[in-house]
Amino acid sequence: MTIAKFIYDSAFRNMDLYYATCFLTHDPVVFFEFKGKKYLILDVLEYERGRRSAKVDKVINASAYVNNSEIRKGNIKDILQITNLIFKSLKIKTLEVPINFPLSLAKSLEQAGYKLTIGNSLFYPEREIKNKDEKRAITITQRNTFKLIGVVEQILAASKIKKNRIYYKGNIVTSEFLKEQIQMLAIKLGCDLSEGIVVACGNQGTDPHELGTGNIKPHQSVVVDIFPRSQKTFFYGDATRTFCKGNPSPQLVKQYNTVKTAQMKAIKSIRAGINSRKIHESIINYFETRGYKTGKINGYEQGFFHGTGHGVGLQIHESPPYIGSKDCILKEGHVVSVEPGLYYRGVGGVRIEDLVYVTKTGCEVLGHYAKKLRIL
Amino acid sequence: MTIAKFIYDSAFRNMDLYYATCFLTHDPVVFFEFKGKKYLILDVLEYERGRRSAKVDKVINASAYVNNSEIRKGNIKDILQITNLIFKSLKIKTLEVPINFPLSLAKSLEQAGYKLTIGNSLFYPEREIKNKDEKRAITITQRNTFKLIGVVEQILAASKIKKNRIYYKGNIVTSEFLKEQIQMLAIKLGCDLSEGIVVACGNQGTDPHELGTGNIKPHQSVVVDIFPRSQKTFFYGDATRTFCKGNPSPQLVKQYNTVKTAQMKAIKSIRAGINSRKIHESIINYFETRGYKTGKINGYEQGFFHGTGHGVGLQIHESPPYIGSKDCILKEGHVVSVEPGLYYRGVGGVRIEDLVYVTKTGCEVLGHYAKKLRIL
Repeated sequence: MTIAKFIYDSAFRNMDLYYATCFLTHDPVVFFEFKGKKYLILDVLEYERGRRSAKVDKVINASAYVNNSEIRKGNIKDILQITNLIFKSLKIKTLEVPINFPLSLAKSLEQAGYKLTIGNSLFYPEREIKNKDEKRAITITQRNTFKLIGVVEQILAASKIKKNRIYYKGNIVTSEFLKEQIQMLAIKLGCDLSEGIVVACGNQGTDPHELGTGNIKPHQSVVVDIFPRSQKTFFYGDATRTFCKGNPSPQLVKQYNTVKTAQMKAIKSIRAGINSRKIHESIINYFETRGYKTGKINGYEQGFFHGTGHGVGLQIHESPPYIGSKDCILKEGHVVSVEPGLYYRGVGGVRIEDLVYVTKTGCEVLGHYAKKLRIL
Repeated sequence: MTIAKFIYDSAFRNMDLYYATCFLTHDPVVFFEFKGKKYLILDVLEYERGRRSAKVDKVINASAYVNNSEIRKGNIKDILQITNLIFKSLKIKTLEVPINFPLSLAKSLEQAGYKLTIGNSLFYPEREIKNKDEKRAITITQRNTFKLIGVVEQILAASKIKKNRIYYKGNIVTSEFLKEQIQMLAIKLGCDLSEGIVVACGNQGTDPHELGTGNIKPHQSVVVDIFPRSQKTFFYGDATRTFCKGNPSPQLVKQYNTVKTAQMKAIKSIRAGINSRKIHESIINYFETRGYKTGKINGYEQGFFHGTGHGVGLQIHESPPYIGSKDCILKEGHVVSVEPGLYYRGVGGVRIEDLVYVTKTGCEVLGHYAKKLRIL
C-alpha cells in the first residue's frame, strides 16, 4: 500500500495533529505518516524548534525545497511543490485525510494526481481510549477544576447578604469578580480558561451556554461550570457545581436534589459494554416521575434539554464517547462527563457534573468535590 | 443568482464567521448569507442565546426540522436534512464556501446536488480594511499590550543582580515568574493570552518562536513579545520589546541599535500604495551594510530570517497585509506589524515590534512604548 495519513493544520486547532506530534504551532504545518513513520514539514521559522521537540521520526526543512516557503501561510503552491518531491521519492499516491481537511488544498492535491480518502471521524481511533498517563493527566486537571470551583464556594461562604446583594470584603459579588478570582488561581495552577467560565445566576443559569454577567443574587441558584485545559499536558478537566448563597426556595431544593440523585444513579449505571443512550433515557424518565417535564414553556426551552455527557480529553468535547439520545457503547478507558441538569425560569438552573473513567465493572469518578447547594 | 455564502465552523476558530455574526460558539454552527440576508442555524442548546445576541437577520432553530439535531457535533446527515429543506424553499443551488471548508461536508453537499465554489482567501474581503471602530479596538488592545510589556521592565528595574542571577523581592527572576505577573495584569485588563507569551533570554531569544523558560540572566538580551486578544472586542494587539538587565555587550548594543534604526526606517517608508516587499528588502540591505548576514551558521539559521510584518485584526496573523519577500501593495486601513529582528547565538536575539495603521500619506503607530535596551 502506498497510502499515507496526511494533515495540514495547526496543532492548536487540530488535536489529532498534537496527539501525533506533541508539537504545537499556531500556524498550520504539513504532517504525514507513512509505513509507521511520522514526518513534519516545517518552514524555517519552526524548523529548529521542531527538530528539538517534535515527537516524530523526521522533521523536514521546507526551505531545503523552496526559498522562503510559506507553508504556514497556506501557500498551496509551496505545499504542493514540496510534498510532490517527497511523495514521489517515497512512492506515496493515496492520502488519507481528516474529515475537516481544507477543501481548497484537497482539490489541488486531487488535481495533482493524488487520490484522497477521508479518514474515520476519529483520525487516530486510539485517542478514544485513555491510557494510564492520559487518565492521570485528566485527573490532575480535574482536581484543579475543583480547586477553581472552590474559589466560588469560599468567597460565597465568606460573604454577607444585605438586602438583594451579596458583599465580599465590602464589595458587591458579581459574576465578573468571581471569574477574575478563578482566573487568578488558574494562572498559579497552570490552567488555561480561554474558552470561558460559566458563573450564571438565576434565570441566566437556565441557559446552559450562558457564561453569566452582573450581580450574584442571594437565595438564587448559581451554576459554576469550569473546563480548564492544562498548559502542560493540554488535557482538559470539566466540572460543574450549583450553589445558592442564603435560603434556596423549596422548589430549588427539590430540583437540586433531583439532579443530584439522577447524577448518582447515572454514575452507578456506567460500565464498559453498556449503551449510554439507556442511561440518558433513564435520567429523563426519572425526571418525569419527579414531575420535571422538558419542552417549550412561555417560548423558552425548559427542563432537561441537553445530553447527559460527552467525551473529554485533548478536546473539551471529544467523540465518540457520549451519553445522550443516540446509541453509544461505552468502552473501558473512555472518559466522559456525567452532567444532568434541570432548567426552569423563575426557579433557576441546576447542573452537577463530574468526569468518570469507564472500567469493565463500573467507573471511577476523577477528583472529588462535595455536592451541596446551600452556602450559609 | 442562486448563490449563497456558506460556512460550517465554530466562531472561535473561524473569525470570518465571528465577523459575520458577532456570535461565539465553541461547537460548529451553520451560517449562510443569501441576497444580503444572514442566517444562522443553531441546535436547541444555542438557539436562545443566538436569538438574543447574534447579529444576523434570522436565527433558525434546528430542532424545528430534526429532533435532537446534532449540527454542533458534525452530524452531516442532520446538516443536510435541515439545509436541504431551507435551501429548497429559498432556491439556493450554489454555495460559496471558505478555502478551509471541511472536505467531508463538501463531498456530501456535492453528492446532494449542490455546486460548491471556493471563495476568495479572504471570505469577507472588507475585513482587510479596518474601519474607525476596528482601529480603535486594536489601539485599545495594543495599549494594553504595552502595559503588559511594562510589567517586565518594572520588575527588572526593581531587581538586583547577584552573580549570574537576577533577584526580585528575594526570589530569582525566571521567564515563568515574569509570564505569571504578565498574566495577572492581563486578567485585570480583560486580555486573553492563551496563545502564549514570549519572554526569552540569551540564546533562547535567537529562536523567534521559542516562548522561553528558566532563569533570566543578567547582561543578556530578553525578547518580550506579547500578543493578547481583547476578551471584549476579540481584536488582537502585538508588540515586542527587547531588554537587558545590567550591562549589555558592545555587540548586543550595536545589534539593538541596528534593529531599532531599521524599524524606524521601515515605519517611515510605509504608506498606502507602496509595495511592502521593497520595505522588507531595504531592511535586509541595511542589515547587510551594517555587517549582519543571514543564513546558516554552525547549523543554526541566524541573522534576519522572518518577515518584517503581518496583518493583525481578529486574528493574530491576518492576510493579506504582509511585509516580506513577496509582493503586497499596502492600502489605507491596513493594520500591520513592523518587527525586524536580528538573532545571533552567543550575542542574543533582538526584535522590536509595533503595529501601524496605514494611511494615504504614511502610517500611524498604534500605542506607544519607549525603545530602550538597558535596564539598570
